[in-house]
Amino acid sequence: MIGVYDSGFGGLTVLRALRARMPEHDFVYLGDSGRAPYGGRDLDTILDFAEQCVERLFDEGCAVVVVACHTVSCVALRHLQTRYATGMNATRRRILGVTIPAAEAAVAASDGHIGLLGTARTVASGTFVTEVHKLGGHRVTQRAAPLLAPLVEEGLTEGELARLTVRHYLADLEGCDTIVLGCTHYPLLRDVIASETAARVLDPAAFVAERLLDWLARHPDFASGGTGALRVLCTGDTATFQKHGARFLGEPIPEVEPVTAVAGRLVPRDASAAPQGQFVRG
Amino acid sequence: MIGVYDSGFGGLTVLRALRARMPEHDFVYLGDSGRAPYGGRDLDTILDFAEQCVERLFDEGCAVVVVACHTVSCVALRHLQTRYATGMNATRRRILGVTIPAAEAAVAASDGHIGLLGTARTVASGTFVTEVHKLGGHRVTQRAAPLLAPLVEEGLTEGELARLTVRHYLADLEGCDTIVLGCTHYPLLRDVIASETAARVLDPAAFVAERLLDWLARHPDFASGGTGALRVLCTGDTATFQKHGARFLGEPIPEVEPVTAVAGRLVPRDASAAPQGQFVRG
Repeated sequence: MIGVYDSGFGGLTVLRALRARMPEHDFVYLGDSGRAPYGGRDLDTILDFAEQCVERLFDEGCAVVVVACHTVSCVALRHLQTRYATGMNATRRRILGVTIPAAEAAVAASDGHIGLLGTARTVASGTFVTEVHKLGGHRVTQRAAPLLAPLVEEGLTEGELARLTVRHYLADLEGCDTIVLGCTHYPLLRDVIASETAARVLDPAAFVAERLLDWLARHPDFASGGTGALRVLCTGDTATFQKHGARFLGEPIPEVEPVTAVAGRLVPRDASAAPQGQFVRG
Repeated sequence: MIGVYDSGFGGLTVLRALRARMPEHDFVYLGDSGRAPYGGRDLDTILDFAEQCVERLFDEGCAVVVVACHTVSCVALRHLQTRYATGMNATRRRILGVTIPAAEAAVAASDGHIGLLGTARTVASGTFVTEVHKLGGHRVTQRAAPLLAPLVEEGLTEGELARLTVRHYLADLEGCDTIVLGCTHYPLLRDVIASETAARVLDPAAFVAERLLDWLARHPDFASGGTGALRVLCTGDTATFQKHGARFLGEPIPEVEPVTAVAGRLVPRDASAAPQGQFVRG
């Protein structure tokens, strides 16, 4: 069973690519939608949340966890690997990210000048640039695009508002030959982005799937059998997650299992709807 | 000393109105910018954060705390009042919100049909509608506007993108005679909003200041003297807060004091910049 972790809905676009390429594998997806977005958060909070989420996926029986969120991959992947998957633990647990596959795909595709769209935190980390420069002498121009994820969550993935917003950010990526969608929300804006630029538009998700397949082939101990089963967990409202998530996954979402943080761990909870109005906690 | 608490920058527009009307009072502002936005968060997380923030302001010596954030006012004000400012505590601590003043101002201004723009959580709470209906038979139409706060944080408060986004939301408030800016970010879009609607556009901040003055006149024990001093604390990056905050406050921000959550309490921390790249926590 393979775990896929994201701060919310976005990682479902990565899960979509994984299921398309690896239809026989079983997946558990955990979206931390009750605490999304992570982009503007302080570092310790992101590390706390990421620890809780990968621990939940390990507890669900996953041996391999894919951190589908670019923000978490860029700032916290090494921490998660150090804490959970080194030394003795390396034989039974692995954590993989999306930043290195994205950099590899970008370098393979680009003629020399790569553009990156991502969250403020992803851009500030500089991690994607670091990974590209390990692979070649490509120039990288980054642009933080904080309006794009909310635009996608609002369902505004076409039309004049989407076009104007995309144009606003692309203006700073002038001259790039390849533009990397460095946030898992952005593939839903791919058509608009492509219509506003002459550059290649690259969604790294398919390449993440290739790298995972390749990794599993080299680590047969982790290659568990499966039947294409899918479970979905989230920390936020489950009905909203099920409804909106389908747009990201490209297929209906099975009934979503709610989890919540109690004493620093994500545990299952009742799916009762949030109360309205003023709430007094006992 | 009066405490003003907000999830981030937005409450500075309320502080601006308070300082304009009460220039001789001392204020401490706490912006939870490291954990903003609150709008999409689950209830328990909002309650946890709100508890930490008002506790910090009480610890700083504030007797009165104004919850400037509409989201927190709508869902957590009664909880905060119950926990910190009832019984014995009521004689030395008070917590005031912005929802009731907003409802009072709207009812006073409106001819019968009030529109509310706010976060998803503010709208879902229904608290503003409840408060309006306590005051009169006005009709209320609400519209969650998740793109407006990020638009303001990006500095895009004029131009075609702002106009199109505002128009998108106003389309659902057709027929309202008064539109309430139910999120403290929105006053920075006031000109654009006013240019796109024939309705009155109402920023409740000035009315919040009137109500606070009135309340202090009726509770002289809480009316501490002052010299117009201002301290600003935030949980996120202090340099960013100081730079962007000035747009919201309408005057330069004094040096911002960093605070961070440790073991469930907000405490002072070093102002060192966040590290770049991958971060491994010891």
